Amino acid sequence: MDWTLFLIFLAACGGSAATGAMFQPGQWYDALAKPSWNPPNWVFPVTWTVLYLCIANAGARVAQEDGNAYAMGFFAVQIAFNTLWTPVFFGLHRMKAAMVVIICLWLAVAATTIAFWQLNLIAGILFIPYLVWVSIAAALNFEVWRLNRHTPIVT
Amino acid sequence: MDWTLFLIFLAACGGSAATGAMFQPGQWYDALAKPSWNPPNWVFPVTWTVLYLCIANAGARVAQEDGNAYAMGFFAVQIAFNTLWTPVFFGLHRMKAAMVVIICLWLAVAATTIAFWQLNLIAGILFIPYLVWVSIAAALNFEVWRLNRHTPIVT
Repeated sequence: MDWTLFLIFLAACGGSAATGAMFQPGQWYDALAKPSWNPPNWVFPVTWTVLYLCIANAGARVAQEDGNAYAMGFFAVQIAFNTLWTPVFFGLHRMKAAMVVIICLWLAVAATTIAFWQLNLIAGILFIPYLVWVSIAAALNFEVWRLNRHTPIVT
Repeated sequence: MDWTLFLIFLAACGGSAATGAMFQPGQWYDALAKPSWNPPNWVFPVTWTVLYLCIANAGARVAQEDGNAYAMGFFAVQIAFNTLWTPVFFGLHRMKAAMVVIICLWLAVAATTIAFWQLNLIAGILFIPYLVWVSIAAALNFEVWRLNRHTPIVT
């Protein structure tokens, strides 16, 4: 592992992670109806910390492989949409628009996982927990939207 | 040019561009004091459209080069911080935090420009307008913060 390269990819994740620190759930989210399986709030930062370490590690591995054009393109798409989701959901409180963003994110993560898997097995495996978690997050986004869709948007 | 690859990198830019569409300047920004050289509002979406086309084109070129590890790492950093800036400035109205973000963005764009230049001359040239524009945007962010730093944050 090239650790300088790992830190560069971790910096990209840092841009995305900053949204989680700056756009907090707060009173608005606390007041929303949620599904019974909604994880407690502390689970999210813990999970994302582990995931970002996996994402950066996988990115650094595939960056060193020849023929990584599509893999690196999909990586760029997923990091952009990952950074976009939190401000749309927790900043704008637009649950339906956030649902569109997270579907795009899921597709980008799935494409990155497949592309990574073909170039570097460990990198592909490191992306699986991310794909699983975005699936859960998408289901949660959908359920929170469905349960609160008649509640007026409060900004 | 591999146009599928170009469209993948353009999708990454689309995640970033979406922030511009969703986090509008609005009344808050209109009411702020601005420097005399502040460009009119219409300049921003026009400039960013051209810049995103250049960024995606450059990304697709360098993605196809061998030895692109650092270049692709820096590309991921700049697209994440590009996506982060608009929600922090126009969403949270945190001009000082946005200044930190845009300094990180400037460093990431500068690093990407240098790394791209070394691998693919056209890609390096395509990043120059982006570096120039982020320099102008950083100066504008600084001036708007300086001129309004005693104004309380209104969210």
